Amino acid sequence: MDTSIGAREDGDTTEAFGITPVNKVKRMHERGRYDRKTVYEILDAALVCHIAYVIDGRPYCTPTSFWREGDHLYWHGSSASRMIRTQAQGVDVCLTVTHLDALVMARSGFHHSVNYRAVMAFGRAHMIDNVEDKLRLMDSFIDRVYPGRSRLIRKPNRQELKATTMMGMEIEMASAKIRDKHVADDEEDYATVPAWSALYPVTQVLGAPSECVRQLPGLARPDEMADFVPGTRLDELMARTHRRTFGSE
Amino acid sequence: MDTSIGAREDGDTTEAFGITPVNKVKRMHERGRYDRKTVYEILDAALVCHIAYVIDGRPYCTPTSFWREGDHLYWHGSSASRMIRTQAQGVDVCLTVTHLDALVMARSGFHHSVNYRAVMAFGRAHMIDNVEDKLRLMDSFIDRVYPGRSRLIRKPNRQELKATTMMGMEIEMASAKIRDKHVADDEEDYATVPAWSALYPVTQVLGAPSECVRQLPGLARPDEMADFVPGTRLDELMARTHRRTFGSE
Repeated sequence: MDTSIGAREDGDTTEAFGITPVNKVKRMHERGRYDRKTVYEILDAALVCHIAYVIDGRPYCTPTSFWREGDHLYWHGSSASRMIRTQAQGVDVCLTVTHLDALVMARSGFHHSVNYRAVMAFGRAHMIDNVEDKLRLMDSFIDRVYPGRSRLIRKPNRQELKATTMMGMEIEMASAKIRDKHVADDEEDYATVPAWSALYPVTQVLGAPSECVRQLPGLARPDEMADFVPGTRLDELMARTHRRTFGSE
Repeated sequence: MDTSIGAREDGDTTEAFGITPVNKVKRMHERGRYDRKTVYEILDAALVCHIAYVIDGRPYCTPTSFWREGDHLYWHGSSASRMIRTQAQGVDVCLTVTHLDALVMARSGFHHSVNYRAVMAFGRAHMIDNVEDKLRLMDSFIDRVYPGRSRLIRKPNRQELKATTMMGMEIEMASAKIRDKHVADDEEDYATVPAWSALYPVTQVLGAPSECVRQLPGLARPDEMADFVPGTRLDELMARTHRRTFGSE
């Protein structure tokens, strides 16, 4: 691990993560990226990640919501959950984010593919046990998705605070991998294989809101949620709400 | 592990996966499901999964395309990749699929949530080294997404066959976890917290195809791809193409 690359509170996105045997993109290495700007953009466009961790030598892969602040990633969970009880002890994790962007149909099976943007971030999970930090992070978690919303809702009570564990990790190593290409076949196949070939974009989009049936009369969607327009891409929305809440780091 | 539940070639979906300390849904256990029908439906509606595995005690989480046949899951990779080189030796993996269905805004941070359908499937990865099996699985992989397409494309050549490793696992244990609820707040918060609350559906959808610029003249989209209509939900499409190719197991 290249320990010269640590957490950067100043949010410098120009420096790259060090390349090590752990995060090095070995296959299709031309798709690999290590600069913070690319890694951060992919992370910040996501709401859900998958976290791998080990219990008794066995791997687990758990989906969860998360967000980034500087070189740190945060998520939460029930204090009673297996994932959190394990991670709270301080364990290595790999947090992965994947955006599926397209199906790519080619003229050979070998060149069938998908377009995607993915990040694998490696670090050691730790529990946030300082109550003030925890309360601040709980607000950040809400605001990261719904800018300004933490001011509108009821604050966590003692029981909720106890039942919720907030986890964090410093990104020690990370790599991004991106495929952003159209159909790319072997030269001889274009003329000889009569298979209709195309790229189908795939997007994750927001639908029309369904209001709570017990909405208080007179309440309207907050102005800070003006970006929550039906049909909006979730990745673009998450990138915008992240910028609104944390600025462009 | 309940070893009475093994691979079922007859595709019986009535029996449940055994509940063990590994796959037991401990938190929000009312969201947990173990029946094959639920587990299979969630798996078959997905194209991409995340696989957790361990190298030198360190967890990795890699996104990849996969599919199910009976109680087996298959994926592939470059024979040179770290993931495949590790898994080919036969290692425990956890293969996880997650569909994000909605953002749920509540009146307290604690009750903010997302709707989702997820499966964690546990088993031991093995390499498919029999060439006939491998060729059949390569066809299945294409047809699982694009019914009938393996007949239209160029077959794998020796070099491609060598460069590609096909991996499989029997699902030894699995659990599904589903949240499919609207806003659900603490009773006292409905009347007292003036926060606009709603559910925003989230779907992953297909866009309009962009044809390869080197398409042979006169080629049209195959009839077997009639379901590939722009705006179609990817999860529903993948469930349909899976049924078309493998029948309703």
